[in-house]
Amino acid sequence: MSSQEKSLYLNLSPLDHRYYLANRELFDELSRYLSEQGNVWYLLRVEEALLLTHLEEAGVLDPDLERAVRKAAEEVTPDEVYEEEAQTQHNIRALVNVYVRHLPEQVRPYVHLGATSVDIMDTAAALRYRDAMRRVVLPLLLQVERRLIELAEHEAETPQVGRTHGQYAVPITFGYAVAEYVSRLGKSILRLEELSRDLRGKLSGAVGAYNATSLLVRDPRGFERRVLSRLGLLPTDHATQLVEPEYLLRLLLELNVAFGILANLADDLRHLQRSEIGEVQEAFGEKQVGSSTMPHKRNPWNSEHVKSLWKAFAPRVLTFYLDQISEHQRDLTNSASARFVTEYVAGFVAAAERMRRILAGLKVHRDRMLQHLKEGGGAMLAEAAYVLLARAGEWNGHEIVRRATLEAERTGKSFLQVLAEDRMVWEKLSSSLAETVGEEPETFFAEPWRYRGKAPERARELAREFSRLMDEIEERL
Amino acid sequence: MSSQEKSLYLNLSPLDHRYYLANRELFDELSRYLSEQGNVWYLLRVEEALLLTHLEEAGVLDPDLERAVRKAAEEVTPDEVYEEEAQTQHNIRALVNVYVRHLPEQVRPYVHLGATSVDIMDTAAALRYRDAMRRVVLPLLLQVERRLIELAEHEAETPQVGRTHGQYAVPITFGYAVAEYVSRLGKSILRLEELSRDLRGKLSGAVGAYNATSLLVRDPRGFERRVLSRLGLLPTDHATQLVEPEYLLRLLLELNVAFGILANLADDLRHLQRSEIGEVQEAFGEKQVGSSTMPHKRNPWNSEHVKSLWKAFAPRVLTFYLDQISEHQRDLTNSASARFVTEYVAGFVAAAERMRRILAGLKVHRDRMLQHLKEGGGAMLAEAAYVLLARAGEWNGHEIVRRATLEAERTGKSFLQVLAEDRMVWEKLSSSLAETVGEEPETFFAEPWRYRGKAPERARELAREFSRLMDEIEERL
Amino acid sequence: MSSQEKSLYLNLSPLDHRYYLANRELFDELSRYLSEQGNVWYLLRVEEALLLTHLEEAGVLDPDLERAVRKAAEEVTPDEVYEEEAQTQHNIRALVNVYVRHLPEQVRPYVHLGATSVDIMDTAAALRYRDAMRRVVLPLLLQVERRLIELAEHEAETPQVGRTHGQYAVPITFGYAVAEYVSRLGKSILRLEELSRDLRGKLSGAVGAYNATSLLVRDPRGFERRVLSRLGLLPTDHATQLVEPEYLLRLLLELNVAFGILANLADDLRHLQRSEIGEVQEAFGEKQVGSSTMPHKRNPWNSEHVKSLWKAFAPRVLTFYLDQISEHQRDLTNSASARFVTEYVAGFVAAAERMRRILAGLKVHRDRMLQHLKEGGGAMLAEAAYVLLARAGEWNGHEIVRRATLEAERTGKSFLQVLAEDRMVWEKLSSSLAETVGEEPETFFAEPWRYRGKAPERARELAREFSRLMDEIEERL
Amino acid sequence: MSSQEKSLYLNLSPLDHRYYLANRELFDELSRYLSEQGNVWYLLRVEEALLLTHLEEAGVLDPDLERAVRKAAEEVTPDEVYEEEAQTQHNIRALVNVYVRHLPEQVRPYVHLGATSVDIMDTAAALRYRDAMRRVVLPLLLQVERRLIELAEHEAETPQVGRTHGQYAVPITFGYAVAEYVSRLGKSILRLEELSRDLRGKLSGAVGAYNATSLLVRDPRGFERRVLSRLGLLPTDHATQLVEPEYLLRLLLELNVAFGILANLADDLRHLQRSEIGEVQEAFGEKQVGSSTMPHKRNPWNSEHVKSLWKAFAPRVLTFYLDQISEHQRDLTNSASARFVTEYVAGFVAAAERMRRILAGLKVHRDRMLQHLKEGGGAMLAEAAYVLLARAGEWNGHEIVRRATLEAERTGKSFLQVLAEDRMVWEKLSSSLAETVGEEPETFFAEPWRYRGKAPERARELAREFSRLMDEIEERL
Repeated sequence: MSSQEKSLYLNLSPLDHRYYLANRELFDELSRYLSEQGNVWYLLRVEEALLLTHLEEAGVLDPDLERAVRKAAEEVTPDEVYEEEAQTQHNIRALVNVYVRHLPEQVRPYVHLGATSVDIMDTAAALRYRDAMRRVVLPLLLQVERRLIELAEHEAETPQVGRTHGQYAVPITFGYAVAEYVSRLGKSILRLEELSRDLRGKLSGAVGAYNATSLLVRDPRGFERRVLSRLGLLPTDHATQLVEPEYLLRLLLELNVAFGILANLADDLRHLQRSEIGEVQEAFGEKQVGSSTMPHKRNPWNSEHVKSLWKAFAPRVLTFYLDQISEHQRDLTNSASARFVTEYVAGFVAAAERMRRILAGLKVHRDRMLQHLKEGGGAMLAEAAYVLLARAGEWNGHEIVRRATLEAERTGKSFLQVLAEDRMVWEKLSSSLAETVGEEPETFFAEPWRYRGKAPERARELAREFSRLMDEIEERL
Repeated sequence: MSSQEKSLYLNLSPLDHRYYLANRELFDELSRYLSEQGNVWYLLRVEEALLLTHLEEAGVLDPDLERAVRKAAEEVTPDEVYEEEAQTQHNIRALVNVYVRHLPEQVRPYVHLGATSVDIMDTAAALRYRDAMRRVVLPLLLQVERRLIELAEHEAETPQVGRTHGQYAVPITFGYAVAEYVSRLGKSILRLEELSRDLRGKLSGAVGAYNATSLLVRDPRGFERRVLSRLGLLPTDHATQLVEPEYLLRLLLELNVAFGILANLADDLRHLQRSEIGEVQEAFGEKQVGSSTMPHKRNPWNSEHVKSLWKAFAPRVLTFYLDQISEHQRDLTNSASARFVTEYVAGFVAAAERMRRILAGLKVHRDRMLQHLKEGGGAMLAEAAYVLLARAGEWNGHEIVRRATLEAERTGKSFLQVLAEDRMVWEKLSSSLAETVGEEPETFFAEPWRYRGKAPERARELAREFSRLMDEIEERL
Repeated sequence: MSSQEKSLYLNLSPLDHRYYLANRELFDELSRYLSEQGNVWYLLRVEEALLLTHLEEAGVLDPDLERAVRKAAEEVTPDEVYEEEAQTQHNIRALVNVYVRHLPEQVRPYVHLGATSVDIMDTAAALRYRDAMRRVVLPLLLQVERRLIELAEHEAETPQVGRTHGQYAVPITFGYAVAEYVSRLGKSILRLEELSRDLRGKLSGAVGAYNATSLLVRDPRGFERRVLSRLGLLPTDHATQLVEPEYLLRLLLELNVAFGILANLADDLRHLQRSEIGEVQEAFGEKQVGSSTMPHKRNPWNSEHVKSLWKAFAPRVLTFYLDQISEHQRDLTNSASARFVTEYVAGFVAAAERMRRILAGLKVHRDRMLQHLKEGGGAMLAEAAYVLLARAGEWNGHEIVRRATLEAERTGKSFLQVLAEDRMVWEKLSSSLAETVGEEPETFFAEPWRYRGKAPERARELAREFSRLMDEIEERL
Repeated sequence: MSSQEKSLYLNLSPLDHRYYLANRELFDELSRYLSEQGNVWYLLRVEEALLLTHLEEAGVLDPDLERAVRKAAEEVTPDEVYEEEAQTQHNIRALVNVYVRHLPEQVRPYVHLGATSVDIMDTAAALRYRDAMRRVVLPLLLQVERRLIELAEHEAETPQVGRTHGQYAVPITFGYAVAEYVSRLGKSILRLEELSRDLRGKLSGAVGAYNATSLLVRDPRGFERRVLSRLGLLPTDHATQLVEPEYLLRLLLELNVAFGILANLADDLRHLQRSEIGEVQEAFGEKQVGSSTMPHKRNPWNSEHVKSLWKAFAPRVLTFYLDQISEHQRDLTNSASARFVTEYVAGFVAAAERMRRILAGLKVHRDRMLQHLKEGGGAMLAEAAYVLLARAGEWNGHEIVRRATLEAERTGKSFLQVLAEDRMVWEKLSSSLAETVGEEPETFFAEPWRYRGKAPERARELAREFSRLMDEIEERL
């Protein structure tokens, strides 16, 4: 165990106090990949793979030796490495110096041989982000997606006002509204899974041209492939001192796409919880306090929280883009900045987990949804009226109906009443309705929620399709 | 012709004066897709496709009528539309009103029928960006990539110092350095081509649930597919009032990836042109002036320019992410911002074109490259020495050589001389060299540029591979 | 007049077609400072000031010569300059070559003498942005601020629900809500005015050390001051080839602060226009169309538009920060990017003007505001109840009231009724109310809008204070 | 002590492991203000000030009671608060509940009375950032600035090539180059000090209108002033639930300005350390390793590091701008994001401290600087030649000299030689030189470093001026 213990409450990043405490289990798991201890562990995995490959090529690898080698890597602690780094001022040389001490003498000359530090670090980074994605991020997103699919199916028929510009537009169903996120988040999950499988490593040395390994082995490119295949990775197409930055960049850009989708969902949910709307509600505990001074408050604070985390993390994507640029065979200006990718992933996980909890406890107030459709009144069928007129050959229908809604507003009459007062209009509406839905205008305009198009069907189709796609993903993880 | 003529020099965006004048032909072509005139043209294409499909479904479409319909869309001018918009305060209603006037009476009721404005606008946007990508951006990038491939092959054997941290590291070849961009830009082109083929349209109405078209046709989803297939597009998986934002977003994110690659290349080139380095040079005209006050200046201003455009445009990617969020079935806060995507594409094109010209005229100073390798001296083989010692079983080689380089610095002796003074070291070096490259240390250390690993081979392999991939792309465009 | 005429509709930036047409007068004025023609005009102002100072120092300046010099600068057209630049590939050398041709022979050797291009360009930029700020941006913001002040005063007593988390909190007045923007925008105006007065010029040559002018005049620093004072500017404290970037940077950062304030106001207004809220409304024309398919729609599209412009422009602030960095005595990577600052200012102006129009036509629905207070019911006085209990010595008041609100929700009783059922509570409330507002609980809880603290007073105080401060600004412009 | 101990190496933010270990003392100090423990400490300071003010107004405050109150705030631990929050799900209510338990019974009803959570949190934030700025950030920046002033003075006469576009331009002195940062960073320090003094608090309740305090005290605005003056703060001009966001925002924007200046300096230093340039050098330890595989490397890794931290943190400024927007009297979407400001400040401190160390150990290689001036040769005086010709009445001097430099390049002759071959030119140069520096062309052109303008004088003047200004700042801290 490390001697470097410290109270959480003294940490400077909220990820390491407040968000850790709120997500202890998830963050402990993330920590295996993204903490400094995780980093050291993965760096040693890469050194080990290199060493074992050397020993194998030299024909000296037997089971006993392999055990000894594997044991050494397990013994090294971050404390030792940091102590050594105080001398070398170079983190990988420090790691190697420490590692060597734990190894049998006969294998020491092979340690790190042919590698430059970045071979180890970039390869370890590929492993760390691959594993964090496949063991934490993707499983968590799958839970969110599964819950969205459930909701879309369960609420496929629940009438809700469709809104544009925050104004009543035409009816949909709540399940259809949820299906938006089934579709968008689902596709992002598919892409993330794909990209997480294509992070790359390297073993091509100081400037990527296999200078050192060319002195050591006959087929340095084959040697690299063998080292990396021990870790389940492919080599980068080209290398400078660095793996091409775009393999990881594209993954992070897509993670930010998923973050934006979660933020949009959060915005939708928090506005649906406005006092005047109240169509959904986050779970609220019996002892929970909404405000330190206003005892009656029940705030959509979790949805607000997801949006807020997005604000904190989404702009960091610029750093990922800035890190594309490294002069000549590399400058070091991506080194510190790249370390902070761990924060980004943790921030994303905190937001996704919060959304998972919101959805798990979400209450849907169907009565309020229906009430809004009633209050919206016939005007919500203004589009339908115009379409029915057009169907009956009236090309100026939009303008006729626009004026009717204005007159209804001015006079206080109902929209239906105004329409009924124009005989020509009424007849065309009647005939069109007879030919399509087979109803009288009075009936049709009284229940606007039936003008919902294919909302329930599409909600169910998308739920089914993404359910199948998620099953496929799950098998691959 | 429009009455809205104005001097270029009065425009506020540099894209519409300075960059237009510097890229007249390219920008005239871009303008077909991305100007307001282009916009109106594409909007009419979508209205036309909708109208023709309606007429076809109604069984009234004959060649004469189709001709009349197609003629109408060609007649409408932006001037007319803007004049009408002054009344309606709504751009698509204005367009429709104008369009209707140019059409035969019997088809008027079908115009825009079942569509909401965004059906037309988002579908037109998909078409505009698809065409701008496939007819301007991708062909231009292919030219850049082809020239990089040529350079990588042509300079595959040209010795150059590999640098890390701006310091001499170990040798590579210039062709290998160029191959970095062959590989990175090449992959970005592949992805851009893929994404440009998958922009989507919609014809599902005000909130995406096919409310209106459900009153008009039996199979609204099939109707949507038929309208869009006239334009070569597929429908979005789910729709609110909007097409899912991620189809276009991912394309723009990848464009920014390509922009970063160009910026990195530009940085590499401008630093190689420093007075003290001088390994490459941009073309410089006989009458060209480098400075208004320093007559001797020959500046790498084109490379600087590409980097500068990247600084101007890369951060705009944040706007694309912000536009992912649209409340409920849509708010309008993505409307103005999305219009500025045209600027982004134009900025990218200006940068790519500038890079094309730089590469077309680039002078490679092989003599300077070789000179630097000579000046770098044997120390550039410090890695080789360490590796050769390790190969001979010396596990402390790194430290031995590190001290040797420090001693060489301190005493002014050559690195080789210091090595030679340690008999043990010398013997190990000799034996390792004999077994690998089959040479004496004196010879080996005298010509550091031979310690280049697989640089030439990799340069040629990557050139060949991406040449083939680019051929494939070209066939698809 | 220029031969470079083009239809607006062919421009690529929306600023140069759609936004130009929507803001013709304002943009024509902006164009005097920020277009390329404006740029050339200002560059010539700086060359002229330099030339006149040289002539004065040489003791040869007489009124005739001054007239001739001034005439020359007026004659030069952008067309000429661009034609020359096709040769020199250097914009300032081109300008100088053209300018010289219009000047009397005896003054030609003095033209541009001692200056480097950037002396002219950075000084002209200081002038352009100073003038654009003081003649367009600040007067426009003052109009917005004046209208906010009017509203804050006029609605100082209008009861409105105060909301937090989108939930009813405690009452305020609408004037108090508006006073937020009086205060925030007002302070931003003050700072912008200050910063716009402190943009700096330079006349210190190629690397800022007065190399050239030291060969020409005895006191080069004094010479610089004299040239710049002809233009109303001070010199930068230190110069490289560039003026220190932070003078302009801070102005742009503050402009983005003001942009954020406008965006926040826009968000407030658009949410207050939601169908379910409807407390304010943008002006809507008799012939205006809200949706191409839904004839009943009246959307808050102007407020949405302001927010959308903010999304398009606010992230560009990153470019301004990136442009702080220029290697050694300058690299050119800030050149293209800095040109796009003109776009940013134009985008800001379009947003501010749109906000001016919204506020000019804004309808305030006082009845809806009051209705929400009534619907909110007594629970909106939960805080008051808790405070009154605490005042009467009850330290557990928050929890008592929290439970009361839960019970009211569960049982359907009114909040007041629940409170009344607890005798101890009721007595404490009664005694506290008697001592403070001098009322019975029944009266107090029936009219929650009277629990508004100092809302009206603060609204009026802030209106008065900023009215005075704006008067001061106006005098300085 | 807290039970929440954890190994540093398990933390997810590099600030809480790697950067903590590299900056232990500084970060321990920062932690007093910016950690969660610091947060709780400051929140209690605000609750305490509110409580004491209440007690004073009630006329019951005596020294014993004050002691008891102060003791209570010292006793509360973060552990207790977090435990309570698990119940309340509300951090400030949890804090208050815990605080109350430590207080004498008679004062309990006054605790938190009249305040909303944000009164406490925003006021505490003002205190935390004020103290972090004035006790850590500004003292650290003053050290950096002092060292820059020293360097500027010490190297005021050291000849160096001035460079533009990375190309030799005209001579300066190294002290003059350093004075750039004296001036830019100095002004940023002045502004930061000013802004750190003007962070504001509030005690105006749930929506900022003094609703609750109006029930409690006669002059709620005066009451607020008295509470805040105990903490050395002024109240915000207007409040919603929040303090106006721009007080803190402007401070953070300026911190990012200072960050950009440090990054620019870092870039300058790292490029001056390129193998081919080598004009300065970072300190390098005897045992330090530059590369794990290339034993000869001495990299400018500290300068690269500062630049890299800037890349990691500068884009976060967008979050600060996004947090300007809070709907109506506040939504909570700035809550999580605002917590991460602590990370930003810590990142800045890590970068500034690294720069302090670089400057403390920086080696200046005057010989290399001079050598470059010699290698640059006479062409570096091309500007001087042109100016001297102009001074002698030759208006076409720039073109004459431009051709001379081209001819020198083409023929291999020296620039001086080419000039000498044109009799007219030579005579004009001679006469101008005689009148100005009083020298022959041969002498003048042989020592280009004497063409340095006012570089040494300006370096010293700026050093003196900012030294004085920093003295003033230091007195205020």
